[in-house]
This record gives sequence, structure tokens and C-alpha cells, in this order.
Amino acid sequence: MNLAAPFLLFIGDVPDALAAKTAQGVVDWRPERCIGQNRLPGCGADLGIPDMSIADAVDAGAKTFVIGAVNAGGVLPPHWTSAILEALNAGMDVASGLHVKLESIPDILAAAEKNNCALHNLRHPKQSFETGKGTKRSGRRLLAVGTDCSVGKKYAALALERDMTAVGLKAEFCATGQTGILIADRGVALDAVVADFISGAAEWITPETDPNTWQVVEGQGSLFHPSFAGVTLGLLHGSQPDAFVVCHEPTRTTMRGVPTPLPSIQQVIDQTIAMGQLTNPEIRCVGICINTSALDESAAKKLLEDTGTAHDLPCIDPIRFGADRIVNELKRIYPEAA
Amino acid sequence: MNLAAPFLLFIGDVPDALAAKTAQGVVDWRPERCIGQNRLPGCGADLGIPDMSIADAVDAGAKTFVIGAVNAGGVLPPHWTSAILEALNAGMDVASGLHVKLESIPDILAAAEKNNCALHNLRHPKQSFETGKGTKRSGRRLLAVGTDCSVGKKYAALALERDMTAVGLKAEFCATGQTGILIADRGVALDAVVADFISGAAEWITPETDPNTWQVVEGQGSLFHPSFAGVTLGLLHGSQPDAFVVCHEPTRTTMRGVPTPLPSIQQVIDQTIAMGQLTNPEIRCVGICINTSALDESAAKKLLEDTGTAHDLPCIDPIRFGADRIVNELKRIYPEAA
Repeated sequence: MNLAAPFLLFIGDVPDALAAKTAQGVVDWRPERCIGQNRLPGCGADLGIPDMSIADAVDAGAKTFVIGAVNAGGVLPPHWTSAILEALNAGMDVASGLHVKLESIPDILAAAEKNNCALHNLRHPKQSFETGKGTKRSGRRLLAVGTDCSVGKKYAALALERDMTAVGLKAEFCATGQTGILIADRGVALDAVVADFISGAAEWITPETDPNTWQVVEGQGSLFHPSFAGVTLGLLHGSQPDAFVVCHEPTRTTMRGVPTPLPSIQQVIDQTIAMGQLTNPEIRCVGICINTSALDESAAKKLLEDTGTAHDLPCIDPIRFGADRIVNELKRIYPEAA
Repeated sequence: MNLAAPFLLFIGDVPDALAAKTAQGVVDWRPERCIGQNRLPGCGADLGIPDMSIADAVDAGAKTFVIGAVNAGGVLPPHWTSAILEALNAGMDVASGLHVKLESIPDILAAAEKNNCALHNLRHPKQSFETGKGTKRSGRRLLAVGTDCSVGKKYAALALERDMTAVGLKAEFCATGQTGILIADRGVALDAVVADFISGAAEWITPETDPNTWQVVEGQGSLFHPSFAGVTLGLLHGSQPDAFVVCHEPTRTTMRGVPTPLPSIQQVIDQTIAMGQLTNPEIRCVGICINTSALDESAAKKLLEDTGTAHDLPCIDPIRFGADRIVNELKRIYPEAA
């Protein structure tokens, strides 16, 4: 993408932290790229970094105004538009993960042209893709899959990349969604690709590489989510993972946004192997990542231990306790890449 | 879509019948809507209907100029553009299944506006969709799935609709691709929908209906095709079929366009049930449809009988021998809809 850093993160007047999770993801994983947050009166989220006006941020060196929040309804409200115009007139580029294209709003397009600033639409890939080919590429691939949407797949992949790199493995995070793209500065928002090209775009994201480099791929959706399973399957086929981790949120009872019950972790393992074998016959599960943030520490540790024992796999909360147990499992199973 | 009939089917100078299969599909299933074919010098396909100039077709009442062929590379060659302009200047609407939007070509847009003619881009749905909900809708649904792409799913669904209607069942074909849309005059080209909305678009195509009406849904791709399985899965989840037929082409050894081996019919049955249960726990296979056009009659009949016996299911070639055995199976299993 070549987004110019540092960023001023704009979260408008969103009601809660969930609506600002794109900006929070950038703060959590790339704090060095975040110079401050810009909020409007009534904002219910706080990224935990300094509040800054647009003028002050530019004085401090901010290069890109990142719209790191989603607005209910997906439209751009007028009072957000005026903040974007102010940023452009102050000379900043603008990056957005909204569905609407920035240049479709005439005032924004005019201000960007007048000030010679770039407009980045993270959900609208500029490149065109071929259909997936399914042929084996060199390199190792690790995919985060989930029992549901929004269970921590991106954070698990980022923690794995971090902890793999820390012990000397060659690992690179591959982004498949807008927040991941802001963190990695490259990638494709798979959910916005035309359906015929999902697996082709996933192949583009995870190209042929050094045989012992791990591409750690951000997952999307769930094979068991009735809204998004097509994206999940195209990503599984296109990324042809050697290994996968199953991500899970233990307090969830129905799939996000729909009344469908959650699948079991074992169902996800079995179905991922059954479908993933099409493009990688060696696919295997190497661990389970549970988001235990709703549990106290002793309950969390017990759940991790019990779940790991039940599945005979390393079971971790990679954010709370680190990812080294799965990293060790990767070193054990794939010694040539260690 | 509200395409004005009758059609003049334009197939340009395509090299063979395969490249004209969209037009052939309309001739095969809606001959009453086809007034003639329009071909350029060197055309290697013949739809078996009268050749007509644009002027003669308009005199005979033609209302829509249908581009029923695909050009290698997916671009619109200049000598096709001039035929389209001639049709518009003669007062016909134009319908196209090409990837390129007709109005993106300035001369075509200008001619359409000047002559007040409609431009129909079959692959670019005008409506926007919601994400899939996965909730059960009233009505019966029968989906054609396949061991591969281009194995006869659309023809099987159309033959089933025809033969179901002939014995008094309430059946309506639901189109999911450009040729199907030309035949049904409605539907959505699922492969052109944004990935997040595949199952939502499939739900839109198969809305709640009378409990005893069968929606006979055109399939797309294959759960085992590494390029297109995401579309197939989104269609399976969104259309929530009660029943499905597996379509197969017995001379195929690798999946269309890729070196992946073909799955067995049993693998397709098992995986379709495993994944389809998410949105319809009652999903079941009701028959097998084999395209036997490459076999002589006795070999065809033997293959159908052997395959049917092996799977304990009615096994037919619905184009060559009719679909009544599967229709009878539907009446037996679902007597309330018969």
C-alpha cells in the first residue's frame, strides 16, 4: 500500500471500543506508526494514545489520516467528512476501510486533488486477480481459522509471527482484511474481492517464497458461518496452508450476527483438513488459540489445559500468555524450517 | 431483468461452439425468444437458427441484441463494438454477459443514450445485497451441484424444472449465472458478486415462497474446484437446499482449467451434506445426473445403471433420457409437495 507513516488515527464519535477496533489493532501492533488519536465530541472509545488536533498532528509529522472506525450503516456522516477535508487541506493523505470509496465524495476528491494528497481505500483492491490455480508453491504457510468471526484470528497470527521471529524463524504476516493491511502495509481485503477471484486473491497474498519462510496468514470468517464461509473456503484453498491453528472465543454461544450455533473445535479441525487437503494434502492442525479475556487467570489456564488435553494439541492464549508453545510445535514438526 | 424479446443472438467470430455456449443455452431452452443468429465472417459456431442481419432482425421484430459469446481475453474487440453500435442505432437494446460493462465504452454509451436503448450487463447485478442470514425460509429447494465446473448443472436444473412442471409439481428455475439469467429473465451472476455477499445473494435468489413450491437452483463450480469452491459453498449455504443432485461428466479426468484430479461422486455427496447441514439439517441427495453425450447409447445406459446401483440413487442423463426418475424420487420423498 505504501501508506506514509506516522498516522493520526481518526475514530470520530463511535459509541464504543468495538467500533474503533481497526484503529485499536494498529495501536496494539504498530504503536511506532501511531502519532495520536483524533476524536469528536461524544466518542465512546479511547485508543490509549495522545489526543491530537489535525493541525498539531501535522506539526508533529503525521503523514496519513487513518479512518480507523466503522460507522453504523456504513455511510460517511457529514461531520466525519469535514474532518477528512481538514486533514487533506492540512496536507495529509487519507486511508479508509469504509465500504464507500473516498473519491466518490466530490468534496473529498477535490480536496485531495487540490492538495496533491493520496486517497487509500483499503477495501478496494487496486490490482486485478486471476482465478486460483491450486498448484503447490514453495514456502511454508500457517493459517489462522476460527470457530466464528471476530474470535482473535488476526491477533493470533500477529502473535505467532512475533514469537516465531523472536526465536529465529523466518515469518511474515499476510493480511487479508483492512486492519491487517494497516498493520502490515500490504495485503488484500478478501471480503471485497469479486467472488470468482477469492482463491486467486489468496494466492496473490501468499506467493511463492523461500522454502523455509513461514507466511502467517490472517484468517477470515469461519467454514461454519452461514454469511461468510465462501470467503473462508476460498482463503483456505488459495493459501494452501501446511499448518493451521483454530481460534476460539469460549463465551460465544451463537455465530456472530446470526442465530447459528457455534461448531465445536473438533468440527473445525476436521472440516478444515477435509477441505484444505484439496490444495495441500499435508495440511494439519498445530494448535488451538483461545481468547480468554473474559476469564480470570486460573479459569483461563484451566480451560487452556483441558482443551489442549482433549484435542492432544498445544492450546494457548497467544495475547495473554504468548505463543511459544505453538512455535515449539512448529519447530518440532518442521525442523527444516526452524 | 425485463429483457425485451425476441432476441437476435450475436456470436461474433468465435472459433467454436464452446465459446458460443451462452447463446446456445438460450436457443436450447427458450427457442421461442430467439429470432435469429448474427455471425461475423469466420465464425466457427452455428446455433442452428436462421442467420439474420441486424436490419432484417429489427424488421422481423427483434428487440434485444444479445452478446451470447465470450471472446478470448474477455475484452470487446473493435469489430464486435461496431456490431453493437449498429444494433443500438437500429433501435435494439443490448444485453451482455461480458466482464466489461457496456457503458464503459464511450461510443456504446453515446449510442444507447441517443437511441434511448437499454444496456443490460448480466454479470453486474444492479441490486445490492445483505450478508447471508442462514435462517430457514419456507418453500422447497433443489440444488444442482457438480464434481466439476461445466458438467451440466444448468441443463440438469432446467430439465428437472421442465419435467417436474410436466407432472404437476410447482417448480421454478433459479438462475445463478449469465446464461441462466437470459433463460429465466431473472437471477444473479453469483461469480460477479462481492465475496462478502455470496450467500446473501443466494438467499435473495431463492426467497421465501409457498411451502410446496420447488425452487430448482442452478449450481456453480464445485466444492472441489480450487478456483471456485468459495462461490459453490456460499451458494450451498444461501440456497439451503432440501435436496440436491450431483452432476458429472464421465470423460473428465482433471478439474476444468487446473490439474486437480476430479473428486468421486460419493465425495461430492458426503461433502455437500456435511457443509449443507449448516443451513438445512435435512439436506439429502436425491439423484445423480450424468452428461453421457460422449458415449454411445448402450454404454450410456450401462454407466447410468451401474452408477445408480453403486450409490443406491436414481441416476439419469436428464437431457438424453429425461428426468422423470428423479422427479418420481422427489414425489416419493416429499409427498406433500407432489
